[in-house]
Amino acid sequence: MTMTTLRQRSLLGLKELDKEEIVSILDRAAYWEAQPEKVNGVLNGKFVANMFFENSTRTRFSFEVAEKRLGAEVLNFSAAVSSVQKGESIYDTVRTLESMGIDAGVIRLKPIGVLADIATKIKVPLINAGDGNNEHPTQALLDLYTMRKQFGELRGLNVSIIGDVMHSRVARSNLWALKKLGANVKFCAPANMTAPELDVEHIAIDEALKADVVMMLRVQLERHEGGIIKSAEDYRTQYGLTVERAKRMAPHAIIMHPAPINRGVEIDDELVECPQSRIFPQMQNGVPIRMAVIERALS
Amino acid sequence: MTMTTLRQRSLLGLKELDKEEIVSILDRAAYWEAQPEKVNGVLNGKFVANMFFENSTRTRFSFEVAEKRLGAEVLNFSAAVSSVQKGESIYDTVRTLESMGIDAGVIRLKPIGVLADIATKIKVPLINAGDGNNEHPTQALLDLYTMRKQFGELRGLNVSIIGDVMHSRVARSNLWALKKLGANVKFCAPANMTAPELDVEHIAIDEALKADVVMMLRVQLERHEGGIIKSAEDYRTQYGLTVERAKRMAPHAIIMHPAPINRGVEIDDELVECPQSRIFPQMQNGVPIRMAVIERALS
Amino acid sequence: MTMTTLRQRSLLGLKELDKEEIVSILDRAAYWEAQPEKVNGVLNGKFVANMFFENSTRTRFSFEVAEKRLGAEVLNFSAAVSSVQKGESIYDTVRTLESMGIDAGVIRLKPIGVLADIATKIKVPLINAGDGNNEHPTQALLDLYTMRKQFGELRGLNVSIIGDVMHSRVARSNLWALKKLGANVKFCAPANMTAPELDVEHIAIDEALKADVVMMLRVQLERHEGGIIKSAEDYRTQYGLTVERAKRMAPHAIIMHPAPINRGVEIDDELVECPQSRIFPQMQNGVPIRMAVIERALS
Repeated sequence: MTMTTLRQRSLLGLKELDKEEIVSILDRAAYWEAQPEKVNGVLNGKFVANMFFENSTRTRFSFEVAEKRLGAEVLNFSAAVSSVQKGESIYDTVRTLESMGIDAGVIRLKPIGVLADIATKIKVPLINAGDGNNEHPTQALLDLYTMRKQFGELRGLNVSIIGDVMHSRVARSNLWALKKLGANVKFCAPANMTAPELDVEHIAIDEALKADVVMMLRVQLERHEGGIIKSAEDYRTQYGLTVERAKRMAPHAIIMHPAPINRGVEIDDELVECPQSRIFPQMQNGVPIRMAVIERALS
Repeated sequence: MTMTTLRQRSLLGLKELDKEEIVSILDRAAYWEAQPEKVNGVLNGKFVANMFFENSTRTRFSFEVAEKRLGAEVLNFSAAVSSVQKGESIYDTVRTLESMGIDAGVIRLKPIGVLADIATKIKVPLINAGDGNNEHPTQALLDLYTMRKQFGELRGLNVSIIGDVMHSRVARSNLWALKKLGANVKFCAPANMTAPELDVEHIAIDEALKADVVMMLRVQLERHEGGIIKSAEDYRTQYGLTVERAKRMAPHAIIMHPAPINRGVEIDDELVECPQSRIFPQMQNGVPIRMAVIERALS
Repeated sequence: MTMTTLRQRSLLGLKELDKEEIVSILDRAAYWEAQPEKVNGVLNGKFVANMFFENSTRTRFSFEVAEKRLGAEVLNFSAAVSSVQKGESIYDTVRTLESMGIDAGVIRLKPIGVLADIATKIKVPLINAGDGNNEHPTQALLDLYTMRKQFGELRGLNVSIIGDVMHSRVARSNLWALKKLGANVKFCAPANMTAPELDVEHIAIDEALKADVVMMLRVQLERHEGGIIKSAEDYRTQYGLTVERAKRMAPHAIIMHPAPINRGVEIDDELVECPQSRIFPQMQNGVPIRMAVIERALS
């Protein structure tokens, strides 16, 4: 297989993916979601390795369910219980698993740029499950899928992404993909959490609440000591989606969050499962999206 | 399905289960134990998540063997390697897995009352694999199964449970279930490890040794600093099942222990695999018991 | 089954294995490597437990791939997330898994002598995945397999094993097996890392480079504080396989390493995937070797 083909089967990010590819993944996810049988045999005999060099519960589980529903054999690697502690490099681990005959790898890691570098050296397709603050393409795909289910069409949709956009790979992947599909994306963030290097308008919280989709991000205050936000309560007051702010949203608008959630910080407890919230449906949609992405990688 | 039916399929504890339900689980375990094929397909295509928010080796493995023998797809979650560290609540994790399409969840957790609360909010059946010092129903069921195999009948059987009953979910689940089935249960514990709130007679160690079943509990001395027990050796001398004490047991009586064992503390090393001991047979019996419980949850 | 038969199915080390057994495992690995189907059903319905009381990435994964390719059900146990922390003995864990009905166990552990002792008490076959500095038989078998693929014949082959032979179970298992098959093995090590108790010639690094196989070992300098090696750079200068030293190797000679690799310490970064290196092919060969070993254990 040529390098070009391999790159087409890998999924490193949405910045490089064209609109047709994105739509075809969303369409295939809809196909998988409609399947009545829980386990299909299309990937019988294939091995997929989930290599998580950064902790994760939901993303790893979502991939594992997707892989098993496709009938693949699954290998789970979590850095916290491995010899990465002994200084083994990420590359050596991925290369090792490739040597053992895996057919595809799902990978999450912290250092920026490492995934792109590894992908040029490895012959099996790799799926990015989150790399640093760069991209988290399957999260954004499931977000798009959730919005499309709600609104039918993404063109012209107004999406506000609120919170620590500076550190957010979710915000970046959504930005790239939503723009390709014709949506209007705006960011809203405290002054020390903005992303000025990105071509996206930053707006105030009151303005952000007027969107069709209000996507809250997880905030990790320990990353921002000494900033203008002094406490979790302070963050909630200034940027959190409180019950009061949610009332100001349009009746047709929806609330999203990539999770895990800081209840009572970026979003009030009462809103997590309110009628406008799509937070748990997002997680539900992650499985067919990942089935589509893994199937694409191995076909 | 109605809430009532779901509750009947969940297994949160034995306190609420009636005698007929308990007997039907024991009977179904006997059926599974007699099956010659190691893996049966009755749960093919079903997903079971083992969610352990507290460390465990034997219980998690026992459930996993049971699930795989039934043909289910298994997802393992252990808090020590997950984003629970990031503050994610137990509820959110269970709800997340439910969203991803699991068909049943096995759950172990520390905080009291959380499981009962979660079970009212979740639509998939949950099986309690140990919650705080409240209940550990599958352990008690395998204990009952072990006693029934030995004595044929539980009615009138005298069972002594010896050790830290204050902190023991095993003691509680056994107490509820054994009483329903007509056995006589007595506790024996150091003064600072008793369970005065329970309706059960506390007796001295010499008296406790006269029972048909002598069930020793694991002691964790670090929980009892400053008490009347000064050391592991002290505990052994006062409450341990020593070789000398075991000689005073009736010839037909058996020794039980839920494990893991502190050899040389609550039980002497030489007794763990002696002819009267049923400790490893208990673990063997755990697999068919859990097959019966999981099958019941998913049928 | 008799104890003798069981011992023949276990694989505790290569010291006790005769030449014919070793050759038959290598031959069977060649058979498995040639199979086009990734997953075979020969072990359907069998349970294999991977019990790692010491961290490992590559060895555990290699066994897991091998087990799944044979169609077995796999249980993974890693001490870091288990109740071994609570003081549970290794024996009790293995005995517990045996009670639950596993058909074979793969085990890695630190304390010397424990595995041999456990093997006399357990009725299921055990496969040593590395015990202390005693043996690592499947690693040596994959090393022999790699050499045989390269040179056709092991008789008369000159093999240099370079590094911390004192602590190396890989060096020991290779030594026993290679000698049985007629190869000439020599060790090369810093003065405080030698293995004088073994019947093997220790030679200087320049002499060692003349061999057909130059096998580098992973060094853990933290084990040797206060020795003649002062730093990683010092180790590299005196005993590392540098690009300069590699040029002095014979053109037909190959470089091996059991991994994980300390790039820039015992081997230069540029050499890890150079044409003479067989490091990643070694990992590839590990899978069919372990398939042969597990199949042998369960047949």
